[in-house]
Amino acid sequence: MGASNNMKTLIKDAHVVLPDGKVKECNIAVDGNKITHVGNVPETFVPEHTVDGKEKLAIPGFVNAHTHASMTLLRSYADDMNLMDWLQNKIWPIEAKMKKDDIYWGAMLAAVEMIKTGTTTFADMYGDMEKVADMAVESGLRAVLARGMIGVAPNGHQAFEENKALFRDYNGAGEGRVTVMYGPHAPYTCPPDFLRMVAEQAKKDNAEIHIHLSETKGEVEDCLRDHHVTPIGLMEETGILDCGVLAAHCVHVTDDDIKLMKKHNTRVAHNPGSNMKLASGIAPVPKMLKAGLTVGLGTDGASSNNNLDMLEETRLAALLHKVDTLDPLAVPAFEALKMATEYGAKAVGIDNLGTIKEGSLADIVLFDMKGAAWCPRFDLVSLLVYSASSADVDTVMVNGRLLMEKKELLTLDEEHILFEAKKSAARISA
Amino acid sequence: MGASNNMKTLIKDAHVVLPDGKVKECNIAVDGNKITHVGNVPETFVPEHTVDGKEKLAIPGFVNAHTHASMTLLRSYADDMNLMDWLQNKIWPIEAKMKKDDIYWGAMLAAVEMIKTGTTTFADMYGDMEKVADMAVESGLRAVLARGMIGVAPNGHQAFEENKALFRDYNGAGEGRVTVMYGPHAPYTCPPDFLRMVAEQAKKDNAEIHIHLSETKGEVEDCLRDHHVTPIGLMEETGILDCGVLAAHCVHVTDDDIKLMKKHNTRVAHNPGSNMKLASGIAPVPKMLKAGLTVGLGTDGASSNNNLDMLEETRLAALLHKVDTLDPLAVPAFEALKMATEYGAKAVGIDNLGTIKEGSLADIVLFDMKGAAWCPRFDLVSLLVYSASSADVDTVMVNGRLLMEKKELLTLDEEHILFEAKKSAARISA
Repeated sequence: MGASNNMKTLIKDAHVVLPDGKVKECNIAVDGNKITHVGNVPETFVPEHTVDGKEKLAIPGFVNAHTHASMTLLRSYADDMNLMDWLQNKIWPIEAKMKKDDIYWGAMLAAVEMIKTGTTTFADMYGDMEKVADMAVESGLRAVLARGMIGVAPNGHQAFEENKALFRDYNGAGEGRVTVMYGPHAPYTCPPDFLRMVAEQAKKDNAEIHIHLSETKGEVEDCLRDHHVTPIGLMEETGILDCGVLAAHCVHVTDDDIKLMKKHNTRVAHNPGSNMKLASGIAPVPKMLKAGLTVGLGTDGASSNNNLDMLEETRLAALLHKVDTLDPLAVPAFEALKMATEYGAKAVGIDNLGTIKEGSLADIVLFDMKGAAWCPRFDLVSLLVYSASSADVDTVMVNGRLLMEKKELLTLDEEHILFEAKKSAARISA
Repeated sequence: MGASNNMKTLIKDAHVVLPDGKVKECNIAVDGNKITHVGNVPETFVPEHTVDGKEKLAIPGFVNAHTHASMTLLRSYADDMNLMDWLQNKIWPIEAKMKKDDIYWGAMLAAVEMIKTGTTTFADMYGDMEKVADMAVESGLRAVLARGMIGVAPNGHQAFEENKALFRDYNGAGEGRVTVMYGPHAPYTCPPDFLRMVAEQAKKDNAEIHIHLSETKGEVEDCLRDHHVTPIGLMEETGILDCGVLAAHCVHVTDDDIKLMKKHNTRVAHNPGSNMKLASGIAPVPKMLKAGLTVGLGTDGASSNNNLDMLEETRLAALLHKVDTLDPLAVPAFEALKMATEYGAKAVGIDNLGTIKEGSLADIVLFDMKGAAWCPRFDLVSLLVYSASSADVDTVMVNGRLLMEKKELLTLDEEHILFEAKKSAARISA
């Protein structure tokens, strides 16, 4: 399945969103897994395959910087509830019934949805992650995977062993598309000693860390009560911040937290849809961006979103912070798009990703602009961020390989996957 | 074009969202412009046309309770700007160049977008409204139209005469699908005497009023300074509230305002997308609903949204008020859907609309549920509100007549309309 990775592909006559936000109508040449030319493709470049980019907008593929792919199986299982009621009485009991097969089919369902809505990279944290790694290898998606570890749970140390095995077996898998991180779940589920142990192992492996931080007000208050520091402060004390950290949420961070994060180059995965739906609060995104932090975007799991639509998150990021700060210039359209692409790539720790330029990894999405929502066309980036639908995604390339062309999935059997996912969902909810 | 209005149509085997929020798999019988049966269709009902509802969710058509359809022509023309800079330097100068033909093609572009995303009724306020009425008559959409009148403008009285003519010529047009209201633009553009004159005329015609109220903090402060009452209070003083009023925005209303509105049965068109994008603030929707006000949903114009996607507004309404009140139970999924349908119908003053039940006007939308975002199916209303895309809209019926079936528009020539809309947009922006 990796055969196509040495292929030369030409994307012809697309409207290309460049790293500076300008849009140029030109060709893109892809050789192997890299973009070799954006415009000015030399005549010596002879493509084996040509993609018709006419009337299409080419953007870097979306990076979903925080999700739990297999939770697609819980989509619409429990909504409009208080957080602890939702977790204790609905989510945790049904998660306890999920077996490896369910994790796999939930992840495959997520893969179908992600590819069809233009996501090319996802950062995931859950259990049985080798099944999610298999999904990444098979689907062709780029993945940053961590075994979610609940330090206080009876299986906390087993989870740690599983994360180590995941790193050993899958880091660099799928022609380098899979990166493995360590995934201590959160400060309120992992005691300081557990966090220290994880930090040491991560340093040993030169791996990074994916963790939920400062998601709710209650979490921060509890941390202050129990440890006399904020969650971010606790991460510094335990050595977590010495590793590269992808910190999901960061809704309730203080100015001092932001300084600490800047000092350690801690990156943020902002999840506006999930934070709104769970009523967690509004992260101080304009402030974090202004302080020079890298802020990517994530959907969180499909049980608190309820989809994996990164264009929707991009729009929410652009809209929410305007009304929150009462500043119509907060998070403009192109800044939101960068959070979903270039900044997201940095947030999940991948170099050379998230831009369409020579030398970048060839993760490219083409949006079909023929619909009414794209008319008239004064500003293509505004149209994408404020008006278009992820259903307009037409063609998706990851690592130089086409995963979808003209809305046809090329690596996955959608009908079979939906059939198996429904079967899994029926079994675990029975 | 009205011939099909006496037709009998059967929608077969659909999943139907009933007025109480429950979903029933059953048939819907439509005779003329009314729903005659929901389930238990008698054998004596012989349909002339049968719509396949299998794997489709049937909901009442969306009611866009506040928009400016022809502003689709300004989509993406000017974004991410401060309000007065945006209005004075971009929007007003280009609007001044719009002629009757542009109004018509902008409205037709809006019609294409509205039908394809499941809107069946729209409440509109703009100039040259006979062209928007023509769009409603030709497209088959249900419309509530008001001539936007700027009392302080040189053409204020001419606009008033045009609104009277619009009422005379178009109220009840299109087999009763068109209702005409009076449209004084806002308290900051219409002096009290102008508002009094409009209220008297509306009473004479037994017509209702569509007006922007308390959209921004500045508007309320100016009103208090100039008139020593809030905008809502000024509406009572000038007799506007004695007419049925559709009040757009109501972002900055006080508890006393809400009491006044309740007393006069003033209805609200909440526009979360526009209020977020323009950084106007967050309307106290849970409070207004709790006080017993009728709150519908609107997109506002496409220059401040930037689309006419009512499913997106429904989702925003469900998400925004949760995070604003920090209550995950605020505006649950079905309440948001009712705002977009049943409450919206009440807000724009149409009886018997916005529910799928015997005797209701036959405005019905079918969503195709075959995609990944609809899998698995624990709760169809949650799936619609939190996960689905308006691109899943498959079939649209208004007043018993199909305007779209299996994604094919039946009353409009999309290609021609987009061509003409682009021409208009190019001309006015030249």
